[in-house]
Amino acid sequence: MKNLADILELDGPAGPPTERMLQILTEACRLFATRGFDGVSVRDIAQECGISKATLYHHFPDKDAILRPLVMGITRSLHQRVLRAIPAEAEPAEKLRAFMVESARFFEEYRWAFIVSSTVFWTDPQARQRRQRIEWRDRHEALLRIILEEGVQRGAFRIEDIGMAGRLVLGALNWMPKWYDPKGPLPASAIAEQFYDVLLAGVGARPDVITI
Amino acid sequence: MKNLADILELDGPAGPPTERMLQILTEACRLFATRGFDGVSVRDIAQECGISKATLYHHFPDKDAILRPLVMGITRSLHQRVLRAIPAEAEPAEKLRAFMVESARFFEEYRWAFIVSSTVFWTDPQARQRRQRIEWRDRHEALLRIILEEGVQRGAFRIEDIGMAGRLVLGALNWMPKWYDPKGPLPASAIAEQFYDVLLAGVGARPDVITI
Repeated sequence: MKNLADILELDGPAGPPTERMLQILTEACRLFATRGFDGVSVRDIAQECGISKATLYHHFPDKDAILRPLVMGITRSLHQRVLRAIPAEAEPAEKLRAFMVESARFFEEYRWAFIVSSTVFWTDPQARQRRQRIEWRDRHEALLRIILEEGVQRGAFRIEDIGMAGRLVLGALNWMPKWYDPKGPLPASAIAEQFYDVLLAGVGARPDVITI
Repeated sequence: MKNLADILELDGPAGPPTERMLQILTEACRLFATRGFDGVSVRDIAQECGISKATLYHHFPDKDAILRPLVMGITRSLHQRVLRAIPAEAEPAEKLRAFMVESARFFEEYRWAFIVSSTVFWTDPQARQRRQRIEWRDRHEALLRIILEEGVQRGAFRIEDIGMAGRLVLGALNWMPKWYDPKGPLPASAIAEQFYDVLLAGVGARPDVITI
């Protein structure tokens, strides 16, 4: 997660995070994802970074201050990255492909942060910034619906229920970080391409179409 | 979750759970799903049940003993329920539909338990029975792959990569408990039917096919 700095939402008017802060956030993120927020102590994080607890506390007042920038940034960053990746003048099908591929790239890059974030979203007793996160999530879903709607209007897609089709797409993508193996044979973008092909053509055979 | 008893995996040779145990498990399940395992105390669960902590401890030695039967049972039960719902002699497409619809019904019925279970799977420091759960999950994925494979062999499906198509289906289904609203306009089974239709026919328009 070399670009973790790009997705963080740091408090206050502080400048960009230092190398040390990024190291702490990166190690903490991986630990939270694999052991749960409550299963990780500040001591664990410091140990993983090879620093003392005192040094860690110099950068972050508590464990919560480490979690917050990870969790807040991820939903917003996903949306902004995907939005930027969609070519304004392309065909709806091309836009859908870009939406899916860029989402997969994002999950590949920020896999741990996404897992932490989606877990905390559900189980956080303090519902950290849940409202703002829901706003970004809704914006992201709306973007996908606009692409699908445009495709239907221009005759590129046949979809009865735009909302449901959107949820199918998002479910397939959002579940990816749970099983995707970075050491596996396919990069995340290639998986998204395959998903796109299946979604566009369907898995049902078409005996009435002659293929060359 | 009136049928919670059906999915529980209780320790030891004890008989079926008592009404009181089911009440405790049901309330705890909802609390764990909404606030996280570590965000809920034994006192919270007892309070929600309208009983004393002493009464709760009479039935369960600790919070862990409440979580375990919920988490262990869910992956196995999902697989067994779906397996039973698939007609042995049906066409592959009909089997795929049954797989999807029964999964959705299961998620509707055991929504909280599934959310708890899938959260704990990732964040549990003790990796409670993760190995057994992975075995059941793999069996479940294999069942879907067999259906898709059969469909390809019999000419009902056109699928290049069975594993990827299966993951698309499972992602769409497994993400459902995260957004499904029991008070919404559609029952979970109707949503699964829509997903099935989209998956079979695809969203891409087919100008070359004449529909009647």
